Amino acid sequence: MKTLYVELGDQRRYPIFIGQKLLDQPDLFTPYIRGKQVCIVTNETVAPLYLSRLEKTLSAFQVDVVILPDGEAYKNLQSINTIYDQLLKGRHNRSSTIVALGGGVVGDMAGFAAATYQRGINFIQVPTTLLSQVDSSVGGKTGVNHPLGKNMIGAFHQPQSVVIDIEVLNSLPARELSAGLAEVIKYGLINDAPFFDWLENNIKSLMCYEPKDLIEAIERSCLNKADVVARDEKESSVRALLNLGHTFGHAIETAQGYGQWLHGEAVAAGMVLAAQLSQQLGWLDAGDVNRIEELLRAATLPVQPPSAMTSGQFLEIMAVDKKAIDGAIRLILLKAIGEAVIDDSVSAEQIRCLIDSPCDK
Amino acid sequence: MKTLYVELGDQRRYPIFIGQKLLDQPDLFTPYIRGKQVCIVTNETVAPLYLSRLEKTLSAFQVDVVILPDGEAYKNLQSINTIYDQLLKGRHNRSSTIVALGGGVVGDMAGFAAATYQRGINFIQVPTTLLSQVDSSVGGKTGVNHPLGKNMIGAFHQPQSVVIDIEVLNSLPARELSAGLAEVIKYGLINDAPFFDWLENNIKSLMCYEPKDLIEAIERSCLNKADVVARDEKESSVRALLNLGHTFGHAIETAQGYGQWLHGEAVAAGMVLAAQLSQQLGWLDAGDVNRIEELLRAATLPVQPPSAMTSGQFLEIMAVDKKAIDGAIRLILLKAIGEAVIDDSVSAEQIRCLIDSPCDK
Repeated sequence: MKTLYVELGDQRRYPIFIGQKLLDQPDLFTPYIRGKQVCIVTNETVAPLYLSRLEKTLSAFQVDVVILPDGEAYKNLQSINTIYDQLLKGRHNRSSTIVALGGGVVGDMAGFAAATYQRGINFIQVPTTLLSQVDSSVGGKTGVNHPLGKNMIGAFHQPQSVVIDIEVLNSLPARELSAGLAEVIKYGLINDAPFFDWLENNIKSLMCYEPKDLIEAIERSCLNKADVVARDEKESSVRALLNLGHTFGHAIETAQGYGQWLHGEAVAAGMVLAAQLSQQLGWLDAGDVNRIEELLRAATLPVQPPSAMTSGQFLEIMAVDKKAIDGAIRLILLKAIGEAVIDDSVSAEQIRCLIDSPCDK
Repeated sequence: MKTLYVELGDQRRYPIFIGQKLLDQPDLFTPYIRGKQVCIVTNETVAPLYLSRLEKTLSAFQVDVVILPDGEAYKNLQSINTIYDQLLKGRHNRSSTIVALGGGVVGDMAGFAAATYQRGINFIQVPTTLLSQVDSSVGGKTGVNHPLGKNMIGAFHQPQSVVIDIEVLNSLPARELSAGLAEVIKYGLINDAPFFDWLENNIKSLMCYEPKDLIEAIERSCLNKADVVARDEKESSVRALLNLGHTFGHAIETAQGYGQWLHGEAVAAGMVLAAQLSQQLGWLDAGDVNRIEELLRAATLPVQPPSAMTSGQFLEIMAVDKKAIDGAIRLILLKAIGEAVIDDSVSAEQIRCLIDSPCDK
């Protein structure tokens, strides 16, 4: 088992445990639960696979369970209300701990419920997808979607600990493993060129669920994200770099309807668009863009947006994206592989050309 | 005009402005608005009185308005959704500022919407009731009610500034002025014996809306609350003292249905119960309890709970109160007038006797 710590400043930090069979180890949970009450939040897909094991591990506590429907389509305030109802019916007080057992959607909702129940209670993340293991388990972002925009409702709320049992990935569909690899590749692109090289050399064994390499990839991803988050807990500046590919990606997800494209797939296509804009600005060369596309293809990820999507749709949706500052479009681009920057220079016209014309694609 | 600052630690602080005709002064607002967009959240009662004046004061900005129905009964997630909808339709981004124009209910909801829209945007409080001026404008508590409990959903979120124009109190019903005075008296009881003495001497002029004394009472109340909050932003310990009378008060409000008793009225009756328990513990003498009851009566506030309410109702509701720690009942009691303490020693039996028997009442 590997343990790393996310430093939050203000003398707070929390551990991330990464290894095999961690779901069965009470010692990884008990020190991070303050009161006697625990509420496990999970979904219909994950519950039959891992819920009873986790309940057994937490048997020293009074455990309630909320099983939500599976999918991004249910990441809304109604599901949050379902969690509130269970917490109140179970008379959970401020010392209660929510344990999120599931992917990013479960983690975001359980975290938001924890952030807002009685003005904030503790929670522990047990992420069961590669995406959530490397993304939503680090950084404290929680929230739900609104019909007019993704992740528009939310709060920052840090977990007490994160328990990543990589054996749960054996039950993860291949398409979801790939979606998680999109975020893994993102960390190489924005912050860690040697990790990008390592990924080029090890993408095949990752696609085959090789435990040693998965642990390595998750650890290096979390370290990269933790490094950025520790420098900027509230996303005022440097943390925005983590949004590489996300502004385009959110537009794709919104236009297609939540759940049609997986988040990681949309981010993959978004990263290629960002790379192409970076090439137009003279920062990347054609070889760099090609390496990026090749690595994403090796992870069986899309390298362009849905063919039916127009630039008009992109611009319409991106204008309400929460990364927008007073109407200007802020994008994360690449000075080089391993070096992302915040950029405000790209015009709507350049995006129109990129999406609608063949350009360099 | 008086200005005081609430220190939040972490080098953050915000000003509270107290005076007359402040609603018309752009200079009190503009420095605390980051972007170009403002959303005023108010209600149907306050809007006809003060909205147009505030809109004129904020005319340098793009101003949207949300007018909610008036009353605690509407302090729920549905109203929060109404605010989210307007923010998204108006394409408000992370630089937007919410301005809460109204009493505590409006402030709590506008603050919670600000805490959770795009994971947190700025907000400014313009409290229009005495209660909200001395209570909810300081401390950063925001939230809504749930059918199973008051203020069960919420977040801590600090305003950028608070603008208290005491002239708005001229339109406040006398019953609401009294309810506000309950919280004013509370600060004397928990933290400031000289202020309690001052209130005994000035309660009549306060009841007559005398501006100079109102400004004095609001300032000293805010200073007392700010003093406690600055020491304990997240309510882990000392801040709990502010809940004097509130555990009983919440039980009264819940049992009667929100909005039947005003919050301040319920707190007044709750403070008398706390004083009576403090007398039973030998901390207060009969003269102290009498002074407290006399001052509350002079403010035309109730000094006992609804006669039909049983101890069973109190205990049932208090067990889910968020101040409860793993089932024990935590109360704020008085060592003396001006010195509140956290106490875990009172049994259900003592509360049963206090409510159901004549005892010392």
